[in-house]
Amino acid sequence: MAFSDAIIAIVITLLVLDLRPPDSKPGGLLAALLGEWPTYLAYAASYIYLAVIWLNHKAAFARIQEMDRGLQWANLGILATLALVPWPTAVIAETARTGNLADERVAVGLYAIIGALLCLSWLVFFSHLARHPDLTKEEVDDSYFARERPRALVGVVLYLAAGTAGVLINPLVASVIFLLLPAFYGLTSHGIDQGPALLRGGDHDSDNSPKGG
Amino acid sequence: MAFSDAIIAIVITLLVLDLRPPDSKPGGLLAALLGEWPTYLAYAASYIYLAVIWLNHKAAFARIQEMDRGLQWANLGILATLALVPWPTAVIAETARTGNLADERVAVGLYAIIGALLCLSWLVFFSHLARHPDLTKEEVDDSYFARERPRALVGVVLYLAAGTAGVLINPLVASVIFLLLPAFYGLTSHGIDQGPALLRGGDHDSDNSPKGG
Amino acid sequence: MAFSDAIIAIVITLLVLDLRPPDSKPGGLLAALLGEWPTYLAYAASYIYLAVIWLNHKAAFARIQEMDRGLQWANLGILATLALVPWPTAVIAETARTGNLADERVAVGLYAIIGALLCLSWLVFFSHLARHPDLTKEEVDDSYFARERPRALVGVVLYLAAGTAGVLINPLVASVIFLLLPAFYGLTSHGIDQGPALLRGGDHDSDNSPKGG
Amino acid sequence: MAFSDAIIAIVITLLVLDLRPPDSKPGGLLAALLGEWPTYLAYAASYIYLAVIWLNHKAAFARIQEMDRGLQWANLGILATLALVPWPTAVIAETARTGNLADERVAVGLYAIIGALLCLSWLVFFSHLARHPDLTKEEVDDSYFARERPRALVGVVLYLAAGTAGVLINPLVASVIFLLLPAFYGLTSHGIDQGPALLRGGDHDSDNSPKGG
Repeated sequence: MAFSDAIIAIVITLLVLDLRPPDSKPGGLLAALLGEWPTYLAYAASYIYLAVIWLNHKAAFARIQEMDRGLQWANLGILATLALVPWPTAVIAETARTGNLADERVAVGLYAIIGALLCLSWLVFFSHLARHPDLTKEEVDDSYFARERPRALVGVVLYLAAGTAGVLINPLVASVIFLLLPAFYGLTSHGIDQGPALLRGGDHDSDNSPKGG
Repeated sequence: MAFSDAIIAIVITLLVLDLRPPDSKPGGLLAALLGEWPTYLAYAASYIYLAVIWLNHKAAFARIQEMDRGLQWANLGILATLALVPWPTAVIAETARTGNLADERVAVGLYAIIGALLCLSWLVFFSHLARHPDLTKEEVDDSYFARERPRALVGVVLYLAAGTAGVLINPLVASVIFLLLPAFYGLTSHGIDQGPALLRGGDHDSDNSPKGG
Repeated sequence: MAFSDAIIAIVITLLVLDLRPPDSKPGGLLAALLGEWPTYLAYAASYIYLAVIWLNHKAAFARIQEMDRGLQWANLGILATLALVPWPTAVIAETARTGNLADERVAVGLYAIIGALLCLSWLVFFSHLARHPDLTKEEVDDSYFARERPRALVGVVLYLAAGTAGVLINPLVASVIFLLLPAFYGLTSHGIDQGPALLRGGDHDSDNSPKGG
Repeated sequence: MAFSDAIIAIVITLLVLDLRPPDSKPGGLLAALLGEWPTYLAYAASYIYLAVIWLNHKAAFARIQEMDRGLQWANLGILATLALVPWPTAVIAETARTGNLADERVAVGLYAIIGALLCLSWLVFFSHLARHPDLTKEEVDDSYFARERPRALVGVVLYLAAGTAGVLINPLVASVIFLLLPAFYGLTSHGIDQGPALLRGGDHDSDNSPKGG
């Protein structure tokens, strides 16, 4: 987990690099700061999204016993796509500032593609685990990861549908769906709620600090 | 702790990205370097502030046995707001360079809001632990985290008061208070002083290097 | 491994800093995004290359018992050169955008030098281990790292040959070879396939999460 | 160590951010790349310096049993100053490009101050350990850290002397001394050579990968 944790921690922290003292004329700082609201919203949205991904990632790995080459690459696929999330988020924030409708459509389309790719990488990850029950811990039900697949598949479909609606109808609709989807994944994650004993067991063995921090 | 540690380490290290060879005409390097003094002060202030937060964070987690979903999110809230600290610090440094009074008022107001949010996130964190004594270690007094709450609440009030004074009266007053508050939290932290045996116990089990480093 | 893992994680994550909202006129976002294709290809290529290096690094360290001063510096040499990989990759991407043939020749030449240096640092690393079998684990065959040397040596030769071909004949030929070489190293790595029991043993002792993540 | 390791890993990796595709006219890439040689030398020098610091830091912590508040802050002082190293290095590289003698004198003066501060922070660190033998491991000689102090003190003096010579006589002289000093610290470190059994003991307990990586 150390490598994945480090990557997610770095991605989530690099988000703040977009928060800079704005270029403004003397006396114009307040207006300049207020005009940056899309960046603040993008920071909040990206942060929450990546936090949800991290919690889901932790919940998955708490059930994994061993990694083979295929699982390594599936995990590297998740990390490669989650690292992209701040990019389309910043593009949407940029178009919110400039306010060009054509650009806003392109921006939500880009976000939808990255969001769908991320869900697709989870689908590959869950499918690999579903096909290789020997990689999961003994106490984990063999059908656990097979049952996680539909959640990822629904994500692929919803991101593409929201992107299509954003491009054809209204970019704002897509942006609202993009904000809600991580909340959906955060709330529906059975990860930790269903396995307290499992996770508690893992929190103690070699470290007196809780692993979750 | 690995994830939190990584985020705090990254935030504290990104501070140095503001230290760059200054743009200056040939022969003007000394003047340009000296003119950057607000950046140096901002580096020192942010570094010390984040170091104090890290030590307090460590002291809190040394008393936590287990994390539930609520505590995870409370911790993620602390990390999200502490990652913001370099931003208003840089904004104050920028206004110190340009010297516009209206902008300086705005900058200290921004800093006060972020500082208050950070103390608020600690208040949420401590309150969650106070309500869930099962999450703390057995040897930790059940009222420990309840007694930590006033310190966080005082911070919310002091940051808002300092910000208000800075906006209405004099931005310099607020900046001085901002510099002193982390010192206050560093000195009043009972964290490590009250629990040497507790912490010492945690320093040995799985690692021959001291955890604190 | 913590230090090496952190460095590789940071290098791989810094790649996304090149993905920014493009500068474009209102309505020109789509064209601007599509025009950035060399950056996307460079991101994918660098990411996969660094992921292969990370997996090979893990496979090597799973066989190492102890580090002496020489091995520390050999490892630091690998880290120093792998951290350079995104740089010539970005230079190639930049020349793909501007399309100047002379610059493209220079860019592939630079890439070849860095790639050869990276393979050379692996050669030094493997040679040190081959000469000091006491540093490897008992269950590892004493000739293991001696047998790894030719793979690194072939890399030095292939990068220099590809670079020469790119400078003298066609830069595109070199770029294709640069894309294929990491795939070759990813596929031929005996690291994990030959030592499942060895690695599995290492995955359990002090951590209930799989180390590989 | 995790926090210190992470900070050193981040600082050492951020060095590569200075390596960018240079701004150049079509066909001028080779000249532009060659003209960046001070940046390459600065990268190499900073990397080696920080690597030496990391190895010395590891050697010190392998002898520490427990951290008190004072040692935490002494360590945070080392981390704060080592994180500054890339900054004066980049300033020297910048003046090497522009070639203004007055600026070069200022740049080596700045480097000398940071170098002296770094040695000073080590002096504080060693002095704290010399005064608190209870913080070191049982098998470590009580005079060990007292005997480390002169090395740090010599560094303070040498950096200040080199800086003075650079400002008054010739900046190049100072730059050469700056390049040699880390080599001196790398070679004279008794850290690992005197304590193989000590360190070997620490490499095994909770992790099957060598800690040194």
